[in-house]
Order: sequence, then C-alpha cells, then structure tokens
Amino acid sequence: MCAVVGVINSKNASTYAYYALFAMQHRGQEASGISVSNGKNIKTIKAKGEVSQIFNPQNLQTLQGEIAIGHNRYSTAGNSSLDDAQPIAANCALGDIALAHNGNLVNKEEIRNQLIQDGAIFQTHMDTENVVHLIARSKKENLKDKFIESLKSCLGAYCFVLASKDKLYVARDPYGVRPLSLGRLKDGGYIVASETCAFDLIEAEFIRDIKPGELIIFTQGNDQFESIILETKNPRICAFEYVYFARPDSIIEGKSVYEIRKKMGETLAKKFPHKADFVVPVPDSGVSAAIGFAQYLKIPLEMAIVRNHYVGRTFIEPTQELRNLKVKLKLNPMRKVLDGKEIVVIDDSIVRGTTSKKIVSLLRAAGASKIHLAVACPEIKFPDIYGIDTPTFEELISANKNIEEVRKHVEADSLTFLSIEELVGSIGNERQYSLISFDGDYFIKN
Amino acid sequence: MCAVVGVINSKNASTYAYYALFAMQHRGQEASGISVSNGKNIKTIKAKGEVSQIFNPQNLQTLQGEIAIGHNRYSTAGNSSLDDAQPIAANCALGDIALAHNGNLVNKEEIRNQLIQDGAIFQTHMDTENVVHLIARSKKENLKDKFIESLKSCLGAYCFVLASKDKLYVARDPYGVRPLSLGRLKDGGYIVASETCAFDLIEAEFIRDIKPGELIIFTQGNDQFESIILETKNPRICAFEYVYFARPDSIIEGKSVYEIRKKMGETLAKKFPHKADFVVPVPDSGVSAAIGFAQYLKIPLEMAIVRNHYVGRTFIEPTQELRNLKVKLKLNPMRKVLDGKEIVVIDDSIVRGTTSKKIVSLLRAAGASKIHLAVACPEIKFPDIYGIDTPTFEELISANKNIEEVRKHVEADSLTFLSIEELVGSIGNERQYSLISFDGDYFIKN
Amino acid sequence: MCAVVGVINSKNASTYAYYALFAMQHRGQEASGISVSNGKNIKTIKAKGEVSQIFNPQNLQTLQGEIAIGHNRYSTAGNSSLDDAQPIAANCALGDIALAHNGNLVNKEEIRNQLIQDGAIFQTHMDTENVVHLIARSKKENLKDKFIESLKSCLGAYCFVLASKDKLYVARDPYGVRPLSLGRLKDGGYIVASETCAFDLIEAEFIRDIKPGELIIFTQGNDQFESIILETKNPRICAFEYVYFARPDSIIEGKSVYEIRKKMGETLAKKFPHKADFVVPVPDSGVSAAIGFAQYLKIPLEMAIVRNHYVGRTFIEPTQELRNLKVKLKLNPMRKVLDGKEIVVIDDSIVRGTTSKKIVSLLRAAGASKIHLAVACPEIKFPDIYGIDTPTFEELISANKNIEEVRKHVEADSLTFLSIEELVGSIGNERQYSLISFDGDYFIKN
Amino acid sequence: MCAVVGVINSKNASTYAYYALFAMQHRGQEASGISVSNGKNIKTIKAKGEVSQIFNPQNLQTLQGEIAIGHNRYSTAGNSSLDDAQPIAANCALGDIALAHNGNLVNKEEIRNQLIQDGAIFQTHMDTENVVHLIARSKKENLKDKFIESLKSCLGAYCFVLASKDKLYVARDPYGVRPLSLGRLKDGGYIVASETCAFDLIEAEFIRDIKPGELIIFTQGNDQFESIILETKNPRICAFEYVYFARPDSIIEGKSVYEIRKKMGETLAKKFPHKADFVVPVPDSGVSAAIGFAQYLKIPLEMAIVRNHYVGRTFIEPTQELRNLKVKLKLNPMRKVLDGKEIVVIDDSIVRGTTSKKIVSLLRAAGASKIHLAVACPEIKFPDIYGIDTPTFEELISANKNIEEVRKHVEADSLTFLSIEELVGSIGNERQYSLISFDGDYFIKN
Repeated sequence: MCAVVGVINSKNASTYAYYALFAMQHRGQEASGISVSNGKNIKTIKAKGEVSQIFNPQNLQTLQGEIAIGHNRYSTAGNSSLDDAQPIAANCALGDIALAHNGNLVNKEEIRNQLIQDGAIFQTHMDTENVVHLIARSKKENLKDKFIESLKSCLGAYCFVLASKDKLYVARDPYGVRPLSLGRLKDGGYIVASETCAFDLIEAEFIRDIKPGELIIFTQGNDQFESIILETKNPRICAFEYVYFARPDSIIEGKSVYEIRKKMGETLAKKFPHKADFVVPVPDSGVSAAIGFAQYLKIPLEMAIVRNHYVGRTFIEPTQELRNLKVKLKLNPMRKVLDGKEIVVIDDSIVRGTTSKKIVSLLRAAGASKIHLAVACPEIKFPDIYGIDTPTFEELISANKNIEEVRKHVEADSLTFLSIEELVGSIGNERQYSLISFDGDYFIKN
Repeated sequence: MCAVVGVINSKNASTYAYYALFAMQHRGQEASGISVSNGKNIKTIKAKGEVSQIFNPQNLQTLQGEIAIGHNRYSTAGNSSLDDAQPIAANCALGDIALAHNGNLVNKEEIRNQLIQDGAIFQTHMDTENVVHLIARSKKENLKDKFIESLKSCLGAYCFVLASKDKLYVARDPYGVRPLSLGRLKDGGYIVASETCAFDLIEAEFIRDIKPGELIIFTQGNDQFESIILETKNPRICAFEYVYFARPDSIIEGKSVYEIRKKMGETLAKKFPHKADFVVPVPDSGVSAAIGFAQYLKIPLEMAIVRNHYVGRTFIEPTQELRNLKVKLKLNPMRKVLDGKEIVVIDDSIVRGTTSKKIVSLLRAAGASKIHLAVACPEIKFPDIYGIDTPTFEELISANKNIEEVRKHVEADSLTFLSIEELVGSIGNERQYSLISFDGDYFIKN
Repeated sequence: MCAVVGVINSKNASTYAYYALFAMQHRGQEASGISVSNGKNIKTIKAKGEVSQIFNPQNLQTLQGEIAIGHNRYSTAGNSSLDDAQPIAANCALGDIALAHNGNLVNKEEIRNQLIQDGAIFQTHMDTENVVHLIARSKKENLKDKFIESLKSCLGAYCFVLASKDKLYVARDPYGVRPLSLGRLKDGGYIVASETCAFDLIEAEFIRDIKPGELIIFTQGNDQFESIILETKNPRICAFEYVYFARPDSIIEGKSVYEIRKKMGETLAKKFPHKADFVVPVPDSGVSAAIGFAQYLKIPLEMAIVRNHYVGRTFIEPTQELRNLKVKLKLNPMRKVLDGKEIVVIDDSIVRGTTSKKIVSLLRAAGASKIHLAVACPEIKFPDIYGIDTPTFEELISANKNIEEVRKHVEADSLTFLSIEELVGSIGNERQYSLISFDGDYFIKN
Repeated sequence: MCAVVGVINSKNASTYAYYALFAMQHRGQEASGISVSNGKNIKTIKAKGEVSQIFNPQNLQTLQGEIAIGHNRYSTAGNSSLDDAQPIAANCALGDIALAHNGNLVNKEEIRNQLIQDGAIFQTHMDTENVVHLIARSKKENLKDKFIESLKSCLGAYCFVLASKDKLYVARDPYGVRPLSLGRLKDGGYIVASETCAFDLIEAEFIRDIKPGELIIFTQGNDQFESIILETKNPRICAFEYVYFARPDSIIEGKSVYEIRKKMGETLAKKFPHKADFVVPVPDSGVSAAIGFAQYLKIPLEMAIVRNHYVGRTFIEPTQELRNLKVKLKLNPMRKVLDGKEIVVIDDSIVRGTTSKKIVSLLRAAGASKIHLAVACPEIKFPDIYGIDTPTFEELISANKNIEEVRKHVEADSLTFLSIEELVGSIGNERQYSLISFDGDYFIKN
C-alpha cells in the first residue's frame, strides 16, 4: 500500500517527515526511509522495519535540511529485499534527486524493458526506479519539464513526491486513485501526506487535497507554489481506502473514513435479514462498521473478541504461515459473553477467507449458538493492480466461490456482503470510485 | 503488577509458559523470565524487555523439562535493574529451586533486615528474594514444610509459584488479593496462571481458582496434587483487577472482567446527570465501561478517539516524560465527529490526572463544545501496597484535590466518579474486595 | 585499498568467497559484500562492517550458486556511506550482472559526468558504478564485447570481477598496478583474488597471476577459459603493496612480500650510520623489515613495543581522532627493556607523522636514551591516486617537510628513509613499479 | 584465568577500571563487569563478552563514584552462564558490597556445601559467592574483621578486591600464587591490578606488589592505607604466568615477563641438539622465547607463520570445536620461506597437543623438510587448580604420553621441552614457584 510524505520550508523537515511516517505506519511496515535536501546534496536513510526502529534521535540529527520526503513500504508479493526501500535517491544531470511513490504503474514492465534496452541499469525491483530513469533521460531542460515528461509515460495510480536540492514536486495520477493531501506546518512550511492523520499528530493544518492530475512545485524559501493540472479524468478515488486501508481518523476527499465505515455498517444493517442477540466486531478492522450496524438496528454492541495488542496487524504480514499463527495469538473470543448467543460478526472484508474461517471457528468454540457474518464491503473478486497488494485470482475466495460457497467455507450460519451499489451509496453517489477489486473494471489500461 | 505462570507434567512446559506470559504481557513489560526443571537442575533465562523479544525458538529449545515457571515484571518506582527480573533461581540445601511472585509483601523490609542481620546476602531488590532465603534457612526437613514455614512469615498479597527438581508449589495469600487460576493443558499437564486469558491462548481448560490461603503441591509424573489450606481470612480480591489491570477476556473469581466493566459503565450512567450527544471511550481502557454506559442511556457510542497501536500502553512506561510524549503519539481525536458536540468521555480511572488533562485538551482542540468526563471507578486517594504500582500520595491527584478541584485541573466541563459502594455493587455485593486505593483500608498490616 | 574475489564452478562459491574475503580483511574493513549467481539471477548481500560480522551460516546459506564475486571496501576520504558497499548488482539488458572493483579510475569524473549528461542515474559514489553503466549502455551484442568496450573507456589502475548469470569476467589494467591472481579450488573450480593469502586459507592452488591488460572469461560448467590481452603497457605493479598493504604471506608477481620487506630492512641497515643496542619493530607493520635489518647488522631484535591485539589496525580507521586514541590503546613500550638504551625503531612508512611522533614519545617516556627511526620506504611526497587511500598533499608530512624537518617533528634522534632506488633495488631492478607516492610520476593520465 | 582491578580516590574510578580491564583482556574474554561505589550505594554493570563490547560512554557515565572494582572472566570448563560474571554485588548487614576474584579456592565445595547446609542460597556457580556469604555471615563487628575471618576459611590461590561504600579491600593469598600490583594514578588515587600492563595504559605509577598474605584497606578520601599481613608462607608465584598467561610487557614480582620468556628460549637453545636453517615462532605465543632462542644460537629468526589478527586468541575459546576451526583461520605458514628448510618451531607450551599437531602439519604442507619443535616450558602433566583453566588429566597429552610419544603424535621430527629445573632457572633460582602443572605438587591442600 505504502505511504508518502513531503515537507518543505521547515527547519525540522526530517523530524516532521518522521512523525508523519509514524502516523501512517499502518500503510506499510516492511521498510521506511527519509531523504533530506540541505540545499546542495540529498542524504537518505532507509532500511527494513518499522519507522520507530529505523530512526532515532542520532540518525535523524544527521538529516539536516529544509526539504524532506519519506516513505513507508509494504511488501509486494514475495519480495522484501533491502534494496527495495524508498525513497530512491540518485545523482543525475540536475544534481541529486530523491523520489518516493505510493501506487502502482500498470505499464511498468514495458517502461522498464524499454529503459533496459536503452542501457539503463536497475538496482531495485520497484517501478519507482523507472521514473527516476525517465527523469534522468529526459531531454527537457529543467527538472519540472523532465518530471512532466516522465509522468506522461506513466500509466497507473500514483502519488509521487520528488525532492531536488531546492524544490519539492508532488504529483497525483489523473484519476486520483490514491489519496494525497496538502497541509501547512505550525512553523509555516508545507507538508503533503497520503493521509490526514499524519497532519493531526504534528498539528499541521489541512489545506486541501492534491487534485487528480495535479503537479505542484514548491520552491525552498518561497511560500508560493506552482500548481499545474497535467491531465484530468473523471476522478475515481480507491474505495478500498475507505473500506480497509486508511486510518479511521483520516479524511479522504472530504469524507471521514470513520463515518463512512459506520455508514457501511448501517447499510449492511438495513439489509441484514436475521436476528441477533448482539453485534460483535472483529477488532480493530470491523469496529467502525459494527458501531453503525448496531446503532441502526438498536441491538447491543459487544466487544466479545479481545485483541492482544502486543502483535502487529494481520493483513500486512508477508507470509501466509505467520498470519495463521497470529490470528491465534491476536484474537480471543469471550465464552462468558458468547455462550449460547446468536451473534452477528462484522468485519471489513473477506480476502482469502482464512481469517474469517478461523474467527468463526473460534467463536463457535466459545459457545456462540449462531454466527452471522456480515461484511462491510462487497465480494472481492479481482486482484487490485493500482497499489494495494491483494492476492491473485486463485487466492481470492470470492473470485472462486459464490456467497453460499464462501459461507460454507467459513462455516458461518449466514453471510452478508454489501453490494457494489450499497458500497458506493455508503461513500456517496455523487462521484465515481476505483472499484476494481469488486467489479474488475481496470479502467487504467495500457 | 506482574504475572506468574507455572506448568507441570508437560513435555512443552517452557513453551506453554512462554505463551501464557505472552497472553499476560499487559501485566508487565519490564522484564520476563522462565525457569525450567529437567528433573535434576533448573535452568533460567530472564532479561529486560517483552516476552517476544526475550525468547526465540533457539533459546526456548534450551529450556527442556516438564516443570516450568515464568514471570512478567513491571517496574516498580525508579528501579528497573536487570537484576530484578524473575524467577529467582538458587542453589540451596535441597538442590535447585526457582521462585516467581506476583504481589507485594508488606513486611518485606522487616524480613529483609532480619535476614541481612542473620547473614543473608541480597543480590536483587525484590521481596521475592526474601522468600528464597526463608526457604533456604528453614530448619524443616523438606521443601514443602520449608515453604509453609516461609509463607507464615510473609504478610501481604501474593501469588507464588515455586519449582524444585520434581515439584511445583503454588501459593496464594489468605485474602486472595491477587488472582490465580488452575487449568489443565491439552496434553494432560497442569497450568496455573494469574489470568485465565493465558488459558484461552493455549486452549487449556479452566479447572478452578486457587483458593485464598491455599498451597498446592504438584509432583512430576503424578496427576494427583495435594491441596492444603494454610490460613484463610475473609477473601478480598483486588477490585483494581476488575477496574484496570486484568484483560477484559479474563474471568476472575468467576466474574467476567468485561461484563463487570460494562456494569461499572452502566452504574456510572445511572447517576450521570448531564446530557451528551454521544459517548466516547478513551481507547482501550474505557471501551468496556463506555459500552455499558451507552447501552444503559441509549445514546450512541462513537470511537471518536483513535488509538495508534504502534506504541505501547501508557500506564506501564517507567518515566513520566515518556508518558507525556506517548499520549500525543497514541491518541488522535476526530474533529469530523467531535466538532460542536457535547460528549461524555469514559475512562477507567484517574491516577495523576496528567493523561486525563491531556485528553480533555485534545478533545477541546478537536472542537468538542462540552466535555463530560466520567470515570468508571472511585477517586484514587491512597497508594496501593498490595502489588499494584500506584504513585505516592503526592502524585495521586485525588489524594490532594476534591472532585471539583480535579475537574478544574483536567479542565473538563463535568467530572463524575463511581462511589466506592457503586464500584462494589458493580462487581457484586456478595463478597468483600481489596479497595485500598479508594478507602485506604490497609487490612493486611504488620 | 579494497580486495576482490571471484569464484566459478564451485558448489560452495559463496563460502569460498567468504573465506577469501576473510583472509583479505586487512585490505578493507569498511564494508563487504558477496554476489552469487544461481544460473538465472544474482543475489547480493552487502553491508558495512567486517566480513565476519556481515555474514553468518544463515545468510551465506541463502547465497546459492556456482558463481560468486566478493569485495572488501576501505573507506575513501570522508565517505563511508552504506550505499558504497560492493559488489554493485544491476538488472540490465543482458539480465542480472554484478561488479566489484579494486583500484581507481583516474578519468572517473569525466565518465560519470558524461554518463549523467546522457541520462544515467548514480545511486552510489563509486567509480565502479561507471563501469556498470558503460556495460549497460554499450551497443555491442554480448556481455564480453560490452565489457571490453567499457574497459577501453577506463583509465586507471583496476582489477574487476564481473559476474553474469553463467559467466565470470576478470580484468586487470594494462599496467597491472593492482595485484590479482588465479588459483584452482580443491573442488576443481577457479578462484581469482587480490592476494594469494586468500588461496592459502582455502587450500586453493596458485596457477598464475592475471596478466596486465588481460581479460579472462570463465564459463559456468566449462573448465576451459578464454584469455584476451586487451592492451599492454610496461607493467608497473604498485610498490606500496610490498611496502605496506599486502599481507606478508602473499606472493605478488612471484615475490614474497615478507622476503621483500626483509630485504628493505637489510637495505636500510646497509646505509644506517648509527649505533644501536638493539632493533625495535613497530608491531606489526615494521616486523619483517626489522628482522632483515637486525640480521644484516647482527644486532639483537627486541619486541620492545607490545601490541594489544584487541584493537584494529591503525591506518584503516576512518577518522583522525580515533586513530590517536588507538595508538595509545594499542602500543605499549617496555621500560624494563628500553631503559637507558640506544635503539633503532623500524616502521614501514611515515604518512602524516602523527603515529611516528607518538611512538617516539612513548619510547622516550619508557626510558630509551637515543631513538633512531628507520623507515623501510622512501619519503611519501605525493598522494596515491591508483587505489590506495593516502591523504592529500597538505596532510603528507614529507610533502611539506624535508627529512631533517620530519625528524624534528617526530622528535627522533635520527631519521633514515630508503631512497627510491633502494626501494626498487629491494624489490628487484628487473622491472618497473608504480611509485607515485614517492616520485609523483602519475604515469596513467587522462 | 581472570583479571581484577580496584580503584579508589579517583573521580574517574570506573573509567580507570575500564581501561585497566581493557589492557588485561587477554586474561579473560568470557565476561566482564565493573562495580562502583558512590559513597552510599554500589552499582554494577556486567555482561558476557569483551570489555569494549560491554561498556560504552553512556553506561560508563552511569557508574559514578570514587571507588570501583572490575573483573575479566574466562570461562571455566563447560560453564559460561550469564550469572557467572563478576563482580558479585550484594546487599548485606553492612550495606552494599561488591567482590571480584582472580584465583581458585581449593576448598570451595566444602565451604559451599557448609553454607548451603546453613541456609545460604547460591545464585551463581562461582567460588567468589562463597566469600560474599562468609563475609555476610561473619559475627565480627566490622567489614574488615568479617573479611579477615572469611579469608581465613579460604584455602587456595586468590586475589580479592572488595568494595564497600567507603572502602576498598585488597587481599592476596599467603603463597602469592596469582599476581597483584599496586600503583598510583595520575590524579592521586590508588589502583591495584592483576598485571602492570594495566598501569602502563593509564600512566599509573607502579608502587609495589601486594605481598603474599597481605590485606590492604584503603579508605575513601584518605591517602594513607592500612596493610596487614594475615599469614605468610614461602611465596610461590605461579610459573605459568611467566610461561603463558601474562602479557609480555607486564612486570611480575619485579621480573619482566618478556625477558624471562627470552631467557626460557635461551635455555632451550642451550640444550637444543639439532641444526636448523632458522627459528620460527608460533605467533604470538612463541615470539619472545624464539627471540631468545635465536639470539643465543645466532641463527636467523623468521616470522614464517603469519597470524591473521582478525580472530581471537586460541586458548581462551570455550569449546574444542571452535578452536580447531580457528587454528586454520588464524595461522598461515609461508611456503616461499619454508620450502625445503630445516626449521625449529618455538611455542610456549603444549597442552592437548591439538594445536601443535596442526601447526606441524601446516608447516610440513608448506614444504618444511625437517621440523624441530621446541617448547619453552616443561611437559604439562597435571591439571592446574589454582586459577588457570587447564584441562583434565585425560586431555593433557603429557599426562598420558612421554616425550617420544608426544613427538609422534604431533608428527615433529624432534621435540624438546624445558626441564622443570631449567624453567625455574630461567625465571630465577632465588625463590620458589607454583609449578603444579609440571610437578603435581599441590602445595595448597584441604
């Protein structure tokens, strides 16, 4: 999934970047990095692991400068190499640059192959490196034009932050699939970040979202910034940000993720055909939707599954094996509450079905007499290719089974999903969304 | 606070102890250790840090044997030395023994001074070491009698687990202030642990609580165990376990911690004299009570403060300075939800008032128009000396200010506590409780 | 200084590379790395630190394949960045390649600037990356021709080892400034390494030195290799290898480093005009020459300065400050031996004069009545630019002071250097040497 | 073997202790620790590993106080537990004390058993803990008398340093088997250390050796110290200190270790019946003796075995397996020098014969035509029990084979040992020595 941050015009640029990455740790725990420009050179520290493990007062201290960019990475399938941390810093014709990226370029293989044919060398597996090459190879005169030319080659969902010695460039794809917001720091500098929760921690003031297709150029020492709309399409923010990925306290495209999740729960409640003694969220993923669900139906909400917070987040771990172990280590249903009860369990999504099956089984073992599983999103039938690391068709349970088959697989007494229309209605009918996981409409194509 | 575990008659004794400690990590993160007896010697691994950092497959592998005891420690005031990890293993006249302890001996200084006068050397600061000395110095013939004699010298709240080469001894103080439960492992062995949530993780079956004043002696290879009631008083389990310390999914003295917290919230709701648009729990400490509160008043529950789970638990950190930083890093109120709203915020307790003041301030800054603070326990006016690390009189805000003064200090619009009677009523009037933090009745005295 | 190794046709290629790097640790302690080709891909592990810290049985295990190259790096002035570890692995038109380099390209800036103008991006500060770019950009059809074309652009002193999926390429500059030898492994594979001491450890058999200007191409699975002489000049092996850098047990161009150092000591003895009670080597750098010196003059050798081997090698540490501390921690002169004695102290070289001054001062404090300093090489008047990290003119004491001035600076009673002719005579008059540090004849120029 | 240090009346007590331990690292690399008294309490930091790994500016900074003691430990057979690091700090009737010990108590089992019978608990396996118990249990009034009483129970070879809140006690056994010297720091404080090489590093001035049977009591703030001779026997310093253990630059009982080793080599030369082209020391253990040997016979000394200093010292490693690997990694004989030559190899001792056999085999493989092995000490026929960790009878090759059999085992062409008389003559006939490894005269007995 990844997170990006860019800071300019702040003496504490790298520290603000650090805290922003900390606040957005949920978007990627595989690797993190910060590059900072001191007006002449760019220095980068990046490594595997969580932000708070990689950075400390000593090494942050060495990242002096008023322009910083940062990145949290989550591993894509089977590849968690050290080399694949971002930002990618490079020395090229215009001096040092550093680039970080949240999203995915659908034409990355073609670009990479063409670049390699043209003599480029790749030192990572990341599509971000494509763009660094494109910039370096552009015949345009200045970095702005080089970057614009490079962006024109890129097909996909992306948010880029690019630092040079004295400028910060920020670009979002024409559909605006991935979120990116602009804020002002307390010390007067600017910050852009994937999620607004990053602003809250450092008390930055939200200004506006970066527009789909927009390129913003900030210049060191200058409070004015230049905005160019390179290209626009009908905006389609990724619905999965609302469903699963973003932190509930973030505001994406003007909408509170928490409130939309509650709305999804409410929509789910409206169609829920069964009775239940109470509602049980899968913590923490199902909590917001469960609140909306319970409020609508006026049935009690019970935190009947307790989460042990001494372990990390399920979805984000790299291998299937670890995840199984961790379901057991993480979630504990309470027999005292559940015994003999008919319950409705709310989760945010079903991907492989593995976790859901486990949870139903744990609840059954804890005495629940009837278990209705209600899922606050539609069936996930298609792999995402716009920057969310979903599994292949083979692994996606709803790509291979209908609802009844999935219900049987997870051994619930009933199974309810939102329809795509209900999902869209919950977020808001006034605009379009990237819904590829649900409808397979890969609207950004080669 | 600490946690103890003891396992016997299991080939995987140390692994079960490890998982039990992992499940009880919330009771102490300062240091952990496991001692295992292989029938001849006792081997111990202990260190500072969390269970999952200290142990790994390699070093657990070296802890072979069918008897294991373990301990999680949380730091007591100003003292987080390496030497103070438990279990304490010692070689004495009856061979190797290892002892771990949850609780506090009120006559520890007298005993320690007497022992020192008698030529004992202390290599730690822990009262647990007293008991090891008492055992070693007892003139009784066997370990059982030595241990009984030693226990008779101990005044206080305690749960001890003591391993010898072929036996596991488990003792609980005559008032039963600290919890301790007995279970059966899937492989037929026995387990005792401070909280039943440890049983859930490893699918051990709850048998019963250890009785106040009970000493149980398990023998390696023998499914029968011996139970002796050394002394009984009117049992008084610590109310603070229900209020704050235990995991909500634990069952203490037959009562679900989660349900009692809900009941406390409900009781609080009954006396709550104000109006509110909705209820906001302080995550995660106030969630259970907030659910009970909201259900009773039929007003919505909103998770309007989001917790960043990438940082640890507030109360448990050793220094004041870190705690302040971490409140900010951990809790984020949502302006979108709070703006212009009259809210009631539920927390489980107010100790120093520092965190509450910070939270009220954060909520106010996020737009809440009126903030009622409702606390699901009585005012904490007295330091605990029975095994919970509460601050001194000087630091306890309610020891020095009345409710109105506390309200002013935390800058809430109103402040509601449970009375002691309401607390007791919420847990159950049928028995007595250790309430020293609230009423100052130090019923175990020299 | 650096060391390189290349291995092919061995199932234990990475393990052999590891031991070879271990044996050549003295050539660079800043960073190390190994790349291995499994016939399809190249995997690299590299990091800062010593070989034995970076590699362990677990990570070596992941480097499976029959072709491996490796590198030890020592830091060049002021730059010890993580990114600057070698080998450099890259994905390019012909698949994965990895390159490691010992030496220095004198036209590296021109090449780098040209490459950058042509759109290349540099992710390190190393001239090695130039060559990877040149290979990738070559229009030649196969890797051999691309590499040859790239080498033709390179002016300087170099030994390259280049791994592709199924081949190992080894190249040495036309003057043969840096050493590189070929050997056969016990399992039948080939090995090339900077020094023959690497062969000794793993019981590889020395075959011959790589010839100046030679390119050798080894093919996986084929015992025949192709040798091409790309260009030859009058060979000029670096005299400093004999003087300082190589391990005494290495054989360079057919000559034993140990024996040549003894010969230098002997030559020094012949011209030594003073008397002395005995000879004292600076350990370990002056030991070989001191033996030759003492044998010739038939005066006793005394190990009157004791070295504490718990600290690393002086010259190789990155900062001046640390070096001063370490002289004190490392060398201890023995008063019992030295008191009242007239001694001659032998060292291999004087670079900045700092260490020598310290040693003279320590000896004086230990009671030596007269201290003659005899240096087994000529005055170092010019910075080396062919791959040895000597300081700038400003820092080189003999670039700024004549012998008498240096003597005064180091406070010795007399100071004797070898002349350039005596140095050459000691190594052997039959051929030429790279003597740039002494004569400033930068014979490889742009 | 171990090393001890004690410092008093210095504001930098712990720093001086640190450097002293660093200088004495060769006496033990298993674990190290420093205890410091600030006039009220004693604080200890100790851990496994080398001094330079355990301590850093941060943790040394926390060891504030004007009295410090320190210890380097080397592992005794099969037991390298964390708990066995020294000093042992304890809280007892007279407050905090800390004790460190170099030596071995021959009646330790009796004392330990008696103490355990009397109710003592042992938290380590070290005889040092005996003495802490004895002190704590003494009925005498003050620490001085308690310590004296405790020492009277101790039979063996020992050097103790004992810190209390305001005093430093130093004691050496009545035979003076282990060395211990007194010096004055530059800042006016006192230091005692196992070897004088510790004084050299920190420029302390040697005052005198602690006398056999002497107890010295230093008082904080007082330049006068009290000396008591508790008991004297005919002094017998351990000959093995001169042979093997001490650093060559130390002065033990007024004699330079280096000069005595040279003398041993000279004595060996006098009886050496063979011819040899040159002398080859086993580095570094045989160098001093080889110099004496070569000087006497006027044959050349050649450093024909090169040592790779990137690995640690052979004797000191805990397991046999590692040692074999490390011989190969550490020593490289030079074929160029050795080929076709008749040589005499000098080493300081033969213990198990493993290393000698390996070295002879390596030299033979490097072309030596005849290999005479000359050993600068007598045959080691008996285990040491006075503080040097020699193997059991079974493992000592000379306990089980005569010289000819050992020669055959190590496959040398000849084998020469010193006789016991020659050893004694080399050190000096004017006094007696502890020679138990050679003559089995266990003169300190129960």
